[in-house]
Amino acid sequence: MTEPFDLITMGRIGVDLYPLQTGVPLARVETFGKFLGGSATNVAVAAARLGRRTAVISRTGRDPFGDYLHQALREFGVDDRWVTAVDGLPTPVTFCEIFPPDHFPLYFYRRPTAPDLTLRADELDHDALRAARILWVTGTGLCEEPSRTATLAALAARGRRGPTVFDLDWRPLFWGGAGGASGDGGTTGAAAMAAARPHYEAALAHATVAVGNVDEAEVATGLRDPRACAEALLAGGAELAVVKQGPKGVLAVHRDGRTAEVPAFPVDVVNGLGAGDAFGGALCHGLLHGWDLEPMMRYANAAGALVATRLACSPAMPTAAEVDAFLAGR
Amino acid sequence: MTEPFDLITMGRIGVDLYPLQTGVPLARVETFGKFLGGSATNVAVAAARLGRRTAVISRTGRDPFGDYLHQALREFGVDDRWVTAVDGLPTPVTFCEIFPPDHFPLYFYRRPTAPDLTLRADELDHDALRAARILWVTGTGLCEEPSRTATLAALAARGRRGPTVFDLDWRPLFWGGAGGASGDGGTTGAAAMAAARPHYEAALAHATVAVGNVDEAEVATGLRDPRACAEALLAGGAELAVVKQGPKGVLAVHRDGRTAEVPAFPVDVVNGLGAGDAFGGALCHGLLHGWDLEPMMRYANAAGALVATRLACSPAMPTAAEVDAFLAGR
Repeated sequence: MTEPFDLITMGRIGVDLYPLQTGVPLARVETFGKFLGGSATNVAVAAARLGRRTAVISRTGRDPFGDYLHQALREFGVDDRWVTAVDGLPTPVTFCEIFPPDHFPLYFYRRPTAPDLTLRADELDHDALRAARILWVTGTGLCEEPSRTATLAALAARGRRGPTVFDLDWRPLFWGGAGGASGDGGTTGAAAMAAARPHYEAALAHATVAVGNVDEAEVATGLRDPRACAEALLAGGAELAVVKQGPKGVLAVHRDGRTAEVPAFPVDVVNGLGAGDAFGGALCHGLLHGWDLEPMMRYANAAGALVATRLACSPAMPTAAEVDAFLAGR
Repeated sequence: MTEPFDLITMGRIGVDLYPLQTGVPLARVETFGKFLGGSATNVAVAAARLGRRTAVISRTGRDPFGDYLHQALREFGVDDRWVTAVDGLPTPVTFCEIFPPDHFPLYFYRRPTAPDLTLRADELDHDALRAARILWVTGTGLCEEPSRTATLAALAARGRRGPTVFDLDWRPLFWGGAGGASGDGGTTGAAAMAAARPHYEAALAHATVAVGNVDEAEVATGLRDPRACAEALLAGGAELAVVKQGPKGVLAVHRDGRTAEVPAFPVDVVNGLGAGDAFGGALCHGLLHGWDLEPMMRYANAAGALVATRLACSPAMPTAAEVDAFLAGR
């Protein structure tokens, strides 16, 4: 077996098509840039940019966009050995509209389902999953079978040895059983959250770190108060709960009693998409360093803020030097 | 009722995303331009650019790309009153790779089905269909219900009064019942053609003009020799059969015995996509003028050649002045 990875992420991969004209609806966008995307993928890229050895477990269509995703992963230094092709499903593409500072609707093309949701438990490399210093899985991985069982199997393979992160990533559109319709809205609501909750609870029982915003924490816990969410995530299995509150900052609560509440860095937002993934990659970087909660949250906030000031997501993930310079300037 | 349209087309509409870097695979494309697309739509645009009063019957998703399609139709002077929105399906997007002079693979995102394939017969404006000087329907409109029944109903409404064009448009990927997978290949083959043939025959029985390339004519007739295809299309119901043979030119055979075989204009091809739709719009223009076969085919070939020298499709459709200038230069 090769040297263990610092981080293995498991979840979405796809092509992001981002408008090169911002502040206008799609009807008025003339050109799009093409980028590697997908939340779990972006987290692996973010950690790789910080110098970590990372890999992604995901699937693509068997098509030229799938070829592109492999090429882009390699260019970012992310290992692609567990990114496999599926026949009969197109590689997902995602469009967005960019209305700074806080409105970035996404339009997913992941029908009839996404290749990454066809991941199967019997394809997993259990030795590699156990050996990785961190495993990162997402709530979206729970939205359909066989990905749900595969995600839970990957978590179970860890046996709570070493940081095992459950990104509460909540995309209600993906929970309709059709791989995700286009659009920003969807069925959503309390009913969708309640339907997803048992699966979130099952994943949480295997996780040592839970991270998400208040909406996402509500899916897992039924609660919306950040402190109550954090406590419920700890009660559900996590040792560390990280509740993101957008401009209000982030609350981190550890089972050992440590707590940190760190405000967000005010920045001129260009595109808020990807900031959460940058935060996630930096969080992993901090966990690997063994940093204390407050500096870790500050660092992760800084990485997120830097990406928010840039149009792209994956190519915008900052290096450690960029994060250090940003923090030094604050 | 308003003044009749010169041309009503019925069929696909969607967003074309065309690489702004040509001669490279999608993996190496960095940016895409966004254009109004879909074969039936392009034909209406082509005729509108030639000064004709046109409308499209189609459907979009209820999303910002759908809004864009309406805006673009209006900008091209194509009436959008019969372009309606469907809930729960995204507006289709289509990517292509551009390898001049003759390889332009398409990658469709029309899953689980396309809004335009949900057109229903009971939505049709029979008076307008009868009153239109030309009706244009496509083979793709036959690939799924309820669009198949709607397409046949539109043809039947004409009762063979006035030019009623059946564009043999054959996209084998759309005939799997799943709205079209990604990719250039597909199941294709003789079996798919044989399965489609009865529906093509049913449409042909209502049509006065049949137009397509040899592959498309084979779907309708089972034959591949251009002359034999033309004769079979006439026997199947058409009064005029137009068989396109790419660089070899076009064969037009009328039931009254007139025949024209017109070579293609040699041009430096930038993007062959859309040339057939330009040909179609110009064919309608000629039919409305009552031109004889030879000048009509020359004119349509010229329109197609002009579009092939341009990157875009719908915005590249030539005006009458451009076609005249092109022909004068040959």
